[in-house]
Amino acid sequence: MTASLFARALASAAMAEVFADRSLVASMLAFEAALAEAEAAEGVIPASAVAPIVAASHAGIGDIDSLVDEARRAGSLAIPLVNRLTAAVAGRDAAAAAFVHHGGTSQDVIDTAMVLATKRALGLIDTDLARLAASLRVLTRAHLATPMLARTLLQPAQVISFGFKIVAWLAPLVRARDRLARAQATALRLQFGGAVGTLASLGDKGPAVARRLAAQLGVAPGDGAWHVQRDDWVALGCEVAVLCGSLGKIGRDLALLAQAEVGEVAEPTGAGRGGSSAMPQKKNPVAAMTAIAAAVRAPHHAAALLAAMGQPHERGLGEWQAELAEWPSLFLETHGALVALADACEGLDVNPGRMRDNIERQRGTVFAEAAATLLVPALGKAKAHELLTTLSARAASEGGDLRALLRAEPAARGVDADALDAAFDVDAAARRAGAIAAAQLDRLEPSPPRTGTA
Amino acid sequence: MTASLFARALASAAMAEVFADRSLVASMLAFEAALAEAEAAEGVIPASAVAPIVAASHAGIGDIDSLVDEARRAGSLAIPLVNRLTAAVAGRDAAAAAFVHHGGTSQDVIDTAMVLATKRALGLIDTDLARLAASLRVLTRAHLATPMLARTLLQPAQVISFGFKIVAWLAPLVRARDRLARAQATALRLQFGGAVGTLASLGDKGPAVARRLAAQLGVAPGDGAWHVQRDDWVALGCEVAVLCGSLGKIGRDLALLAQAEVGEVAEPTGAGRGGSSAMPQKKNPVAAMTAIAAAVRAPHHAAALLAAMGQPHERGLGEWQAELAEWPSLFLETHGALVALADACEGLDVNPGRMRDNIERQRGTVFAEAAATLLVPALGKAKAHELLTTLSARAASEGGDLRALLRAEPAARGVDADALDAAFDVDAAARRAGAIAAAQLDRLEPSPPRTGTA
Amino acid sequence: MTASLFARALASAAMAEVFADRSLVASMLAFEAALAEAEAAEGVIPASAVAPIVAASHAGIGDIDSLVDEARRAGSLAIPLVNRLTAAVAGRDAAAAAFVHHGGTSQDVIDTAMVLATKRALGLIDTDLARLAASLRVLTRAHLATPMLARTLLQPAQVISFGFKIVAWLAPLVRARDRLARAQATALRLQFGGAVGTLASLGDKGPAVARRLAAQLGVAPGDGAWHVQRDDWVALGCEVAVLCGSLGKIGRDLALLAQAEVGEVAEPTGAGRGGSSAMPQKKNPVAAMTAIAAAVRAPHHAAALLAAMGQPHERGLGEWQAELAEWPSLFLETHGALVALADACEGLDVNPGRMRDNIERQRGTVFAEAAATLLVPALGKAKAHELLTTLSARAASEGGDLRALLRAEPAARGVDADALDAAFDVDAAARRAGAIAAAQLDRLEPSPPRTGTA
Amino acid sequence: MTASLFARALASAAMAEVFADRSLVASMLAFEAALAEAEAAEGVIPASAVAPIVAASHAGIGDIDSLVDEARRAGSLAIPLVNRLTAAVAGRDAAAAAFVHHGGTSQDVIDTAMVLATKRALGLIDTDLARLAASLRVLTRAHLATPMLARTLLQPAQVISFGFKIVAWLAPLVRARDRLARAQATALRLQFGGAVGTLASLGDKGPAVARRLAAQLGVAPGDGAWHVQRDDWVALGCEVAVLCGSLGKIGRDLALLAQAEVGEVAEPTGAGRGGSSAMPQKKNPVAAMTAIAAAVRAPHHAAALLAAMGQPHERGLGEWQAELAEWPSLFLETHGALVALADACEGLDVNPGRMRDNIERQRGTVFAEAAATLLVPALGKAKAHELLTTLSARAASEGGDLRALLRAEPAARGVDADALDAAFDVDAAARRAGAIAAAQLDRLEPSPPRTGTA
Repeated sequence: MTASLFARALASAAMAEVFADRSLVASMLAFEAALAEAEAAEGVIPASAVAPIVAASHAGIGDIDSLVDEARRAGSLAIPLVNRLTAAVAGRDAAAAAFVHHGGTSQDVIDTAMVLATKRALGLIDTDLARLAASLRVLTRAHLATPMLARTLLQPAQVISFGFKIVAWLAPLVRARDRLARAQATALRLQFGGAVGTLASLGDKGPAVARRLAAQLGVAPGDGAWHVQRDDWVALGCEVAVLCGSLGKIGRDLALLAQAEVGEVAEPTGAGRGGSSAMPQKKNPVAAMTAIAAAVRAPHHAAALLAAMGQPHERGLGEWQAELAEWPSLFLETHGALVALADACEGLDVNPGRMRDNIERQRGTVFAEAAATLLVPALGKAKAHELLTTLSARAASEGGDLRALLRAEPAARGVDADALDAAFDVDAAARRAGAIAAAQLDRLEPSPPRTGTA
Repeated sequence: MTASLFARALASAAMAEVFADRSLVASMLAFEAALAEAEAAEGVIPASAVAPIVAASHAGIGDIDSLVDEARRAGSLAIPLVNRLTAAVAGRDAAAAAFVHHGGTSQDVIDTAMVLATKRALGLIDTDLARLAASLRVLTRAHLATPMLARTLLQPAQVISFGFKIVAWLAPLVRARDRLARAQATALRLQFGGAVGTLASLGDKGPAVARRLAAQLGVAPGDGAWHVQRDDWVALGCEVAVLCGSLGKIGRDLALLAQAEVGEVAEPTGAGRGGSSAMPQKKNPVAAMTAIAAAVRAPHHAAALLAAMGQPHERGLGEWQAELAEWPSLFLETHGALVALADACEGLDVNPGRMRDNIERQRGTVFAEAAATLLVPALGKAKAHELLTTLSARAASEGGDLRALLRAEPAARGVDADALDAAFDVDAAARRAGAIAAAQLDRLEPSPPRTGTA
Repeated sequence: MTASLFARALASAAMAEVFADRSLVASMLAFEAALAEAEAAEGVIPASAVAPIVAASHAGIGDIDSLVDEARRAGSLAIPLVNRLTAAVAGRDAAAAAFVHHGGTSQDVIDTAMVLATKRALGLIDTDLARLAASLRVLTRAHLATPMLARTLLQPAQVISFGFKIVAWLAPLVRARDRLARAQATALRLQFGGAVGTLASLGDKGPAVARRLAAQLGVAPGDGAWHVQRDDWVALGCEVAVLCGSLGKIGRDLALLAQAEVGEVAEPTGAGRGGSSAMPQKKNPVAAMTAIAAAVRAPHHAAALLAAMGQPHERGLGEWQAELAEWPSLFLETHGALVALADACEGLDVNPGRMRDNIERQRGTVFAEAAATLLVPALGKAKAHELLTTLSARAASEGGDLRALLRAEPAARGVDADALDAAFDVDAAARRAGAIAAAQLDRLEPSPPRTGTA
Repeated sequence: MTASLFARALASAAMAEVFADRSLVASMLAFEAALAEAEAAEGVIPASAVAPIVAASHAGIGDIDSLVDEARRAGSLAIPLVNRLTAAVAGRDAAAAAFVHHGGTSQDVIDTAMVLATKRALGLIDTDLARLAASLRVLTRAHLATPMLARTLLQPAQVISFGFKIVAWLAPLVRARDRLARAQATALRLQFGGAVGTLASLGDKGPAVARRLAAQLGVAPGDGAWHVQRDDWVALGCEVAVLCGSLGKIGRDLALLAQAEVGEVAEPTGAGRGGSSAMPQKKNPVAAMTAIAAAVRAPHHAAALLAAMGQPHERGLGEWQAELAEWPSLFLETHGALVALADACEGLDVNPGRMRDNIERQRGTVFAEAAATLLVPALGKAKAHELLTTLSARAASEGGDLRALLRAEPAARGVDADALDAAFDVDAAARRAGAIAAAQLDRLEPSPPRTGTA
């Protein structure tokens, strides 16, 4: 398995499979098979060695838990893996065994296996990112002019539209797809440098073998080994963490809007979804929960990658190993959040009535800035602001309405009645926000699906 | 499994077992069984319900991967677990099924299961902490007066003894055992509060049931539910991270001392230990590697726990779930580091000859402060310091020896020759350090085994 | 200044003063003065050197910005500071200059100055922790039986009392005072080891000088130098972060309760408090904001301390310096949060009417678990849970009331009417929660003020 | 000041100035002045209001510490700043005062001021990044074929050249310049949305005012307000942290190479550089220290930014404020590291003699992989590897030389003598590494200075 019980419950099954033991071991063996093929093609090893190595690689190397036990002593998973593979090849063809893992080093096998896994992982992320973005586009269009409260510092502020809010969830996701595509174009490259990065045992055939190997595995060949140059790789990890942060913001907004006292949206319900082991009435926002949990965790996993960058000399002593151990978490939690939100937003239950009701309960005070603008010519800014602060407080405490109080206010006598009505027009405010959202939505054209490759 | 492939290779098998799926599920079921027993003993549920519930709990709830799938929709692992348990009990005794999980909530089951796992985890840590400490005591005693370079800012400083260095590794471990014992005394307590912490469904029987339940499970009853009061729990996690930091310091020192150019210690070698997949001559310091990897990671896992403390109202939405997902990592990495270092220090290869050789290569310059003290009366502090800076540089560049240069130096003519010799006495410096180490060692008496361990 | 503009706005002025440049430099000079006194008392340096050193230390060492410039080249602030102090002493008494900083090293001066600052910092924290705790005690007592919604996963759960919620804010603070007192008892100790921890230049006078020095400065003498044994120190930092996490939880709850749609509490208002530069009606919860900001930041500062523990050999190269740079932030943010919350809770505006109103809007569904218990004998657990899920949904969608729906429900016919009424009794539920809170409050007796010293 | 005493000692004076109180306040006032100009140009406010607002903005708003005190109550620095500016404008022209900050909100002023500071900060980083890169290019060229040990897991591995090592320091820096240029192109944009992001008070003039304002301030206009869309901004912060990680790797390598026992490079010495307050002989690697300290800290500051992304609704409550407080640290520490390394690498003292000496002390064992390749045809892979492990151990313990031992080894009799000599040729190995480095260097063409810099 890929993670402990409670971490797996926050991840998707698909992503757990990508970083599962057997997937990673299979990728490591795929590297060894492709290496033999590339080296034979370049005449580095005999052609006759290829078939036994490829066959043994496909056959697998047996129990993984005991492999991990051996790795603890060896200091690297690749060592017992190569030993087992070599023995298996020897069982098929004694001569071929000499050419297993020829010229490679532990880090070549392991980093490339992680690149292959990450390529699949980013494919999953891209698919669900597109799915979530599509839902948010539909919601934006549907609610361009649906009035809702804007809230700043968790207090009512002014009137926007629900579409305006949704487009602010969407834009970072569209940008994330672009940034991830760019980051993976440089980060998803072959690791192949041999013992110290020079491919010393391949003589002058190193570059040619590397090109073939990369092509075979479907990754970019890159510009030499990146054994201790982790910048592109960690930058990719950070982009995933940034995406996770944007998902966390959506989750938090959803959770706040779904509070019973707010009631403006609800996650879809259904069998087995969001109940409680104790309370029959419960409908918990589990997608929001999953996204928030991911956003609580991801910054620390990104930080661990950054902290592991100081790898000494030509291979890390602990730092690289720490990076390997942390890497999958970022993808597990981010994809878990993404799938949960994509599922929830496809069936989001939006309640425009409660949105309007929550605005009206503010008794016009959310138009205080607009009203102030009308009063400034007569009163000056400070007095206008002060008067509206006082009247807003009165509207709240006495149950009045700010517009009515203003009409009755001698100091506001000079204000044009139509202008005052316009300043307090809920729908007009929502339409203005909707126009901004519509324009932004047009600029956020959907990208074609990412292929997961550079 | 408890963690991804590369994380498991840095952990001990024993700790992986503690937080394994089946262990956690078994603890959750043990909670449900003990709850039934405690409630029956207090007359809250009928005595006849106990046997079927206990039997079904022992029998287990089947496949865990599908449980995790259900948990993703439900928002909590406890919900499908209780559902399956209830169905299993119903299969044995339809009436008893009504009393499964009576009065409890998801968080009660899950937090208590984590407490039980953590108690076992701390037992493992305590055992290997004692083992590592014992080895360090032996090394300290053996090398109280073995001269070695002190190095500050990674540059030669003065002469200490190897025992003096080792006791500085030991003292934080002895303190860690004490701090962990204290922290677990408050943190390892029953979680039991029902839906919102009031045990509302148990009427006035809540406290009595809680006391019985705690006794049955072997944990402290605590002072009410701590659903959203995570301070003691997270403080315990931080103590584990502090221990991990102290282990990382040992690992880093070991790695530096084991560099070929320094060569003062080496990790024990042996079959399958510290080799390379490419280079036959390699003897990699795998214990240091494991400890450094743990110390790179642990700060971030501790930070994630701290970041998860802001759990709203009476149960977290994402924060608690994030904490659950992060908790095992701290224990996995710390115990992995501990076992690796304990193994390595039991067979540490110490090379006093290289230690002395490395001192001598400094050509007396590491006694420059001592020499300065002798020159100050005649020259004043600034001139004395300056002269020794100059002569030290000359000793280094011209291959001389600081003591000889001083003897030839007119400005140093007044210094007593015996005092000068004493100032440059390598063994005397080591003995002075050894005396400090011996005194500190006496104060660091070994503690008896911790009782907090299962 | 102690921090950048926006960090300072989140800190208290008092704590900013504790870690201000001039305070730290003054403490460094106080160390040098006390060192001279202690060494003279033990006959290590001439008595005549004391007065000039003390006088020059009190006089200060001039411009600090240029000191920082010199420190960048030197690699340590103590080096230019000692140089300036030596020159100043020489200006008073040439002979005395030779005895400035005798036997000490940069880390002795700097760490001890940080210990002195931290002692003051913890004194400030203890004072405001006591103040906040006192307010929370008053609020708990006043609202032991004030009914309010419990909310789990940000959804209505059951009925508790406001006092029950407050005591859950209080308990972690009471424990924090205890834990901080314990942590500082071991962490706030003199740093004094000379160049490499052996106090080599003091011959056999080291321990005696250390005891005098510690007594003079009002800190514990400790068990030798802790140049690279950072465990007690970092554990203290972690305790501060844990406290900050508990404050963040209070801040988050306050913010949620203060939402207009919830309206159960409000921070005190007043001139210049919580307004907006744009919106006259705004009353922002600035204490909650300050506490949340602190809790967002503190985990990372604690993690930085943990990450800095791997200090090589006998003095860190970068790690120690990183720790020094990060240390003040933890105290600045935590005390800022504490003062803000203490101020807010002293004048907290509690609205029991809205609390009851929010309960009533749930139409009895928050008693579904209690009702289920009554139905189980007749229906079995699964059916009872299912029925209540259905009726709760109907109550919400059709505007009914769960109790009324149950009364009309044929399947619930057998339930005793009085028992049903009791299950839906808001005040009784609040009283039960209040009784638990009262008992916990009694156990949380106020501690006497901490002296900030061991 | 920008940071506490010890943090400032790790930063550059230039970067401290960028984020200094007075710089940030000046940028906030520059925003207000430019806003008035843009709004007047678009007819939103009277032209007569511009001059007084601009003049008052240039004149400043007085004492900053008291501004911070007011901000603590207000919850935002912008509120007292706008109040003071309004009062100052009123003192010049009562009518103009009404138009101060028209249509803007606190976050517009503050975020844009941070963007302006960050633009300057990135300019400083780019300059010193170019400087460091230039030095590294020179070093690479000079040492393309200078033999040195490659070290993996801190143990001798094989032979590379110093140029090969340096180019691996350089490449991440070249990529960092590109990535930073790309990241700032999207992140450095105007913040301007008014109270809730809709620029409601500007009617339909919002976009036009925004364009003028952006042009005036020299930043990109962007695609609407990013009040709670922090992805581009935090991604930029992460890129700075990635750069810092690459600098930390250089610092760590430098420190390891500068150890007395290794002695392959030394930082430049000079007056006041790298001394000790106690030990006259000390030459501490202060640039390495500064870089390592930065790399220890930066991951946590990046994580804090990521953790602050979950800003609720239309403005954060604590999260935004936390981000503001953390932002400068990343730039301070990264530029401090950069300047220190650029200074050190310009005068780096390289010791090819020690490099060769350290290779020779390995007694040929670093060519064991190459030798194994020669033995494989005769012995098979496993036996060849095993024989070389045995002989390497013997070379180390008995003081022999691996090549001589092989020549004397019956099992190796069939190996061609010339091929064996070639396998052990130090200079040939260095030349092969140098050829790789030369090719990579050619691909890493220097970029022109970034235009994003002020």
